[in-house]
Amino acid sequence: MRTMKNLSKITGLAVAMTAVALPALAQDAVPAAMDPPANEIGFILNTFMFLVTGFLVMWMGAGFSMLEAGLVRSKNVTMQSLKNIALFAIAAIMYYLIGYNLMYPGDGWSIDGVLGAFSTTSLEPVGVGADAVDLTYASVGSDFFFQLMFCATTASIVSGTLAERIKLWPFLIFTVILTGFIYPIQASWKWGGGFLDANFGFLDFAGSTVVHSVGGWAALAGALILGPRIGKYKDGKVQAMPGSNLTLATLGTFILWLGWFGFNGGSQLYMNTVGNVADISRIFANTNTAAAGGAIAALILTQLLYKKPDLTMVLNGALAGLVSITAEPLTPSLGAATLIGAIGGIIVVLLVPFLDKLKIDDVVGAIPVHLGAGIWGTLAVPITNSDGTFYGQIVSIITVGIFVFVVSAVIWFILKATMGIRAPAEDEMMGLDKAELGMEAYPEFTN
Amino acid sequence: MRTMKNLSKITGLAVAMTAVALPALAQDAVPAAMDPPANEIGFILNTFMFLVTGFLVMWMGAGFSMLEAGLVRSKNVTMQSLKNIALFAIAAIMYYLIGYNLMYPGDGWSIDGVLGAFSTTSLEPVGVGADAVDLTYASVGSDFFFQLMFCATTASIVSGTLAERIKLWPFLIFTVILTGFIYPIQASWKWGGGFLDANFGFLDFAGSTVVHSVGGWAALAGALILGPRIGKYKDGKVQAMPGSNLTLATLGTFILWLGWFGFNGGSQLYMNTVGNVADISRIFANTNTAAAGGAIAALILTQLLYKKPDLTMVLNGALAGLVSITAEPLTPSLGAATLIGAIGGIIVVLLVPFLDKLKIDDVVGAIPVHLGAGIWGTLAVPITNSDGTFYGQIVSIITVGIFVFVVSAVIWFILKATMGIRAPAEDEMMGLDKAELGMEAYPEFTN
Amino acid sequence: MRTMKNLSKITGLAVAMTAVALPALAQDAVPAAMDPPANEIGFILNTFMFLVTGFLVMWMGAGFSMLEAGLVRSKNVTMQSLKNIALFAIAAIMYYLIGYNLMYPGDGWSIDGVLGAFSTTSLEPVGVGADAVDLTYASVGSDFFFQLMFCATTASIVSGTLAERIKLWPFLIFTVILTGFIYPIQASWKWGGGFLDANFGFLDFAGSTVVHSVGGWAALAGALILGPRIGKYKDGKVQAMPGSNLTLATLGTFILWLGWFGFNGGSQLYMNTVGNVADISRIFANTNTAAAGGAIAALILTQLLYKKPDLTMVLNGALAGLVSITAEPLTPSLGAATLIGAIGGIIVVLLVPFLDKLKIDDVVGAIPVHLGAGIWGTLAVPITNSDGTFYGQIVSIITVGIFVFVVSAVIWFILKATMGIRAPAEDEMMGLDKAELGMEAYPEFTN
Repeated sequence: MRTMKNLSKITGLAVAMTAVALPALAQDAVPAAMDPPANEIGFILNTFMFLVTGFLVMWMGAGFSMLEAGLVRSKNVTMQSLKNIALFAIAAIMYYLIGYNLMYPGDGWSIDGVLGAFSTTSLEPVGVGADAVDLTYASVGSDFFFQLMFCATTASIVSGTLAERIKLWPFLIFTVILTGFIYPIQASWKWGGGFLDANFGFLDFAGSTVVHSVGGWAALAGALILGPRIGKYKDGKVQAMPGSNLTLATLGTFILWLGWFGFNGGSQLYMNTVGNVADISRIFANTNTAAAGGAIAALILTQLLYKKPDLTMVLNGALAGLVSITAEPLTPSLGAATLIGAIGGIIVVLLVPFLDKLKIDDVVGAIPVHLGAGIWGTLAVPITNSDGTFYGQIVSIITVGIFVFVVSAVIWFILKATMGIRAPAEDEMMGLDKAELGMEAYPEFTN
Repeated sequence: MRTMKNLSKITGLAVAMTAVALPALAQDAVPAAMDPPANEIGFILNTFMFLVTGFLVMWMGAGFSMLEAGLVRSKNVTMQSLKNIALFAIAAIMYYLIGYNLMYPGDGWSIDGVLGAFSTTSLEPVGVGADAVDLTYASVGSDFFFQLMFCATTASIVSGTLAERIKLWPFLIFTVILTGFIYPIQASWKWGGGFLDANFGFLDFAGSTVVHSVGGWAALAGALILGPRIGKYKDGKVQAMPGSNLTLATLGTFILWLGWFGFNGGSQLYMNTVGNVADISRIFANTNTAAAGGAIAALILTQLLYKKPDLTMVLNGALAGLVSITAEPLTPSLGAATLIGAIGGIIVVLLVPFLDKLKIDDVVGAIPVHLGAGIWGTLAVPITNSDGTFYGQIVSIITVGIFVFVVSAVIWFILKATMGIRAPAEDEMMGLDKAELGMEAYPEFTN
Repeated sequence: MRTMKNLSKITGLAVAMTAVALPALAQDAVPAAMDPPANEIGFILNTFMFLVTGFLVMWMGAGFSMLEAGLVRSKNVTMQSLKNIALFAIAAIMYYLIGYNLMYPGDGWSIDGVLGAFSTTSLEPVGVGADAVDLTYASVGSDFFFQLMFCATTASIVSGTLAERIKLWPFLIFTVILTGFIYPIQASWKWGGGFLDANFGFLDFAGSTVVHSVGGWAALAGALILGPRIGKYKDGKVQAMPGSNLTLATLGTFILWLGWFGFNGGSQLYMNTVGNVADISRIFANTNTAAAGGAIAALILTQLLYKKPDLTMVLNGALAGLVSITAEPLTPSLGAATLIGAIGGIIVVLLVPFLDKLKIDDVVGAIPVHLGAGIWGTLAVPITNSDGTFYGQIVSIITVGIFVFVVSAVIWFILKATMGIRAPAEDEMMGLDKAELGMEAYPEFTN
């Protein structure tokens, strides 16, 4: 029965598969013939690991969407949801068209160690044979899928900070440039084997700097150029603009927490030995405890500072813990990971009001979480990993920071000068949902 | 320590496991003894792949539930949630009782190639030995689990179209018949090795036709017989009835997007060779980019047509992209997959108002997404897969369509004639939640 | 290109990995050298299985959070969300500091078979070699990660029952003790190889008693000492206090349903043979059908009893089905699993009003679901598993019950006598969100 079914369901794959991959299928199958040759097992395990951890990172896109939709006011929720689904789609297409080979040029650098290759992504042919792949790694498709999700994450970070006042299309155009160029270029400097990796010994396991601070810098540039929401800083006081749906924000945080196991765990890149799979396990455990440390630190600190624990701070504290451990989730002990995360949580609690003092309006706290804790996490690497140096980490943080901030600022200025980036004041007051989209997220509920 | 724990935790499994599967456990364990014999590895990998992709498809049930709850008005949200959880449970039981062997009869066809076998599902015994399974495939339990989730998906599609006016129990009775008979019978024609597979070379990798169009046809039959909601088409104009919660709809779309990696990826059926795992990777990447193409196409097209991007169209565009690539997620290049998905997105944007013109009231747009894009995706197979023919595809689309539409219509008519399918007008006006269930979804919020 | 990338991205792992785990990387790589030696494959598969099923169980934390936030009134939603994220973080830290080795003392019992070891958790070193691990099992990190999530689940159960009236900090202090001491100690009696396992042949595959009833007993003790919400039982009548957001409750149920595949499936502990992976498949299929049975039973029973199906009962019915099958998800047939789950669903429908009759106020129905169905599931084990005895099961249920109930009651009393556990009446009336946190979950929506 099984064989019958199998044969019929996969008939469509016939040529490639029966010719190359599954020659035994059409015959009177001998069980052993279906088993992978010993030298294919590592490749299969690595590849499947990328697919599983990759779908976890993909899920983070939903996490950002929920977090941000929960933290904006109800009049901007449709817009925030639209931005999040659209940026995820844009990242997918730009990373295929340009980003992947710009980030991983191999031997094809346009400028050695600085600017990668310009070409679209090609996957292995259908039913590829073991002789035509790099058996020491994983399938190109799985690697592309996994790395793409990191690119999308970067874009997700920006949308939260600029919420409630940026127009849709300039935001999406910026996203095109961020996901197609800014992110992949700087990522090539480390993960593509570029100059930060080769010359400065920069260590950033899963991207406290390469992913999170990049989103943070781009968001900061945007926030400065875009300006704060109307009424946010009035008569020298900060006006609270509470999020409309804290269960969504909580859900988003849980989603991100879950997705982060893929984010950090998959960055081990290999699952083909006892050492690698045990390392992935360390990473899962450390990632979890760092989030816990960040949440608890924010919980206690807000209790002490304000006499009332603050849910949104606790959520951001957990996220800051996750960002903090991302640069080095492997070498810390569980205790060290908890502390690294806790310091991240403390940073967020202190940075949020500090940004407000500077009148930088970050709607969801993405800059404290992703830039603040991202820098901290990157700096903390040498504490537990003797291969890292503070010099190399600081140079890299600054290099990436200047590049992303300056290029982002230029793009934001050009967009501002040409099509405008800020919604008209009356649109902002009415809410972008009604004004720009003509569609409310909760049409029956809002008073 | 580990050994101690292991032994104690699994004491309960003692007889079967120590006798058959883990003979070394009770002894002074020799490490190597725990490793799978080489000829079991493929079976283990295939099986685990089904479990992972199966739970992703299961998660789509939540996606449909959130999508539909978000797109109906608040007065019908409790009912929509109840229908979704109940239909998922019904699918589980009916597929066990009847569906699985009706769909995969093996050598036991009741009518050769047309009607499968009638029997309940039996799994392998506990701790089954390698000699008692088909080592060339995967465990029956994992295959059943995976295939069941496709059956449930079909039922989920129907509930959205008929929302806000169909009574609970006739809907659930229809679900019993759909999941126990209609879906499995037509699925056997292709995936069970029946006549569409054997005689027409029909290709449908993961079910653009076998799953999605089936849900669409059943929904269309129901929508025609049930009629539109009161006031939907009034004085020749279409009355907008906006969904109550667009963040839920967005969440549902993200969930479905995630689950679809399992839907399409798992349909490769094997992960035991480099070729198979690389194919699954291609499928993941193509599935993602098709969704992105659908979302972006809908975004741009609604901007052009209506001057305002429409979030619900973008969400449905992403879903249409996913449905479109489902018939052939393997052979297209990333670029082709993006285009196939984009065309799906365009189809949805055009079909939604077209259905309204015909006064077919589809509350969530399930017919455009699952039937419209499902037909398109099935037709597109031969473009990238030379094993397919337009003739075979068209014959199969029509055959399945006629069967499902006619049988569904007969069932709906019988239900209408006997117990009635439509809620009384006053119940519909009041909302099914209060009228039929006496329980509101958001009792404190609605005005 | 791949090699270049790989090398560069993992530079940071250099010492440990190139020295121990991946010696071939820095060389001119020979494909075969990357493949796991045959005696490592079982370890890799077991470990990865724990990571995947572990993240599914982690996801249950989100499920409880959504379920509870949906079933409380809007004025207590922020508090409920805060409690859920905080308890999850506390569990992570306490289980690392104390719980894990208290639960799995190996040879290091403090009191033989009764009280485990006191020490923090250490993971394997980075890049551990195959000679330094227990190749017959899985990595310590993956086992810790998986088992931690069970500890967190126990704490999640308590928060729902006591919602809307317990103060934040005493609840969190109780959580510290529950996750650091109460849960691990009684769990050691079974899963750590303690006296219930060794002397009574107690069978509890994934924790109907060890996890779910424990949460239920702790919640029951708390509910009795805390008392019902103001106005809940007035003039001899039960006052309905409907949940504020039933889509969240539905989402939470779907999340829990999904996570339960990890909960039960991962408890097989091994995926290194055909027998083990086929067993995991059985468990997945049985877990799903038990949930379905519970949902359908509750649906039909509420229709019969009240003439109106009750969504919250159906959701709790599904959860009760899941709890019921947890003690033995492996040996039942699909049909038996469906019935075991269905009886769980019936128990919930009957126990909810019974608790109200006793004026025990359980806001979300956690006691019927986790304690009621937990006892039933534990009792049902010998029906399908001949290794179990009713005597052993009953003794264990009672032993665990007395221990957890008494210790919990003592803790609750101490907390009540010292800092107080109950929010002031005016805070309760106003809602804990405004009163204790100064932050509303839906500030724009509530009337």
